[in-house]
Amino acid sequence: MRKIEHIGIAVKDLNASNALFTKLLGKKHFKTERVEGEAVETSFFQVGETKVELLQATSENSAIAKYLQKKSEGIHHIAFDVEDIHAEVERLKAEGFEILNETPKQGADNKLVVFLHPRSTNGVLVELCQEKA
Amino acid sequence: MRKIEHIGIAVKDLNASNALFTKLLGKKHFKTERVEGEAVETSFFQVGETKVELLQATSENSAIAKYLQKKSEGIHHIAFDVEDIHAEVERLKAEGFEILNETPKQGADNKLVVFLHPRSTNGVLVELCQEKA
Repeated sequence: MRKIEHIGIAVKDLNASNALFTKLLGKKHFKTERVEGEAVETSFFQVGETKVELLQATSENSAIAKYLQKKSEGIHHIAFDVEDIHAEVERLKAEGFEILNETPKQGADNKLVVFLHPRSTNGVLVELCQEKA
Repeated sequence: MRKIEHIGIAVKDLNASNALFTKLLGKKHFKTERVEGEAVETSFFQVGETKVELLQATSENSAIAKYLQKKSEGIHHIAFDVEDIHAEVERLKAEGFEILNETPKQGADNKLVVFLHPRSTNGVLVELCQEKA
């Protein structure tokens, strides 16, 4: 866990939230990206070494759509930057954490990603991210 | 907003959560601190330039106790490091954000802090932090 790579925030309307976060952070998002595998449209703001990622569902089956049905807009997950995602998954499994996808999948922003179940992490949805070579 | 200063996580049992986050992050917390004004006991883990702050209520009147009654353990707030908290409050008020305490108050870790109401920030409880001189 080298740094916090980003904080993911679930939003209903990406355009409206981009405008809101531009005012809040005093800067514009530096990119948007659709992640088909997760059925989300994302946008990213840089804040120091970390990013704020806004996530809007593009389908009712998206994890973000389901989250918004159960909860409300707000902080969805914390993503940690790791050097070797496979090694980190093995380490965390051995420590008793519940891994949602043991095989890393394609995330936004050129990353391989793995999620840990919040019930094993104090209610926090944790993402591991490794930058793809 | 120079960087994400910390991410605050509401927990029921600080000792148990310290052990859990030590396993998750692969390192120990570097300090604990009681903040009487907020009725919380906190512990801090360094992750890159950012910190993870665990918060346990020390009284039923603590905002953390009320949060745990309504919701469950999990991510409670994001704190941004600012250079001049008074100027930032004025800027954000002018942008239409709802400030919870216009007069900065004493937070953990030698900081002056101001909170923004989540209803003006996409459901995200935002804290501004300025390091005290």
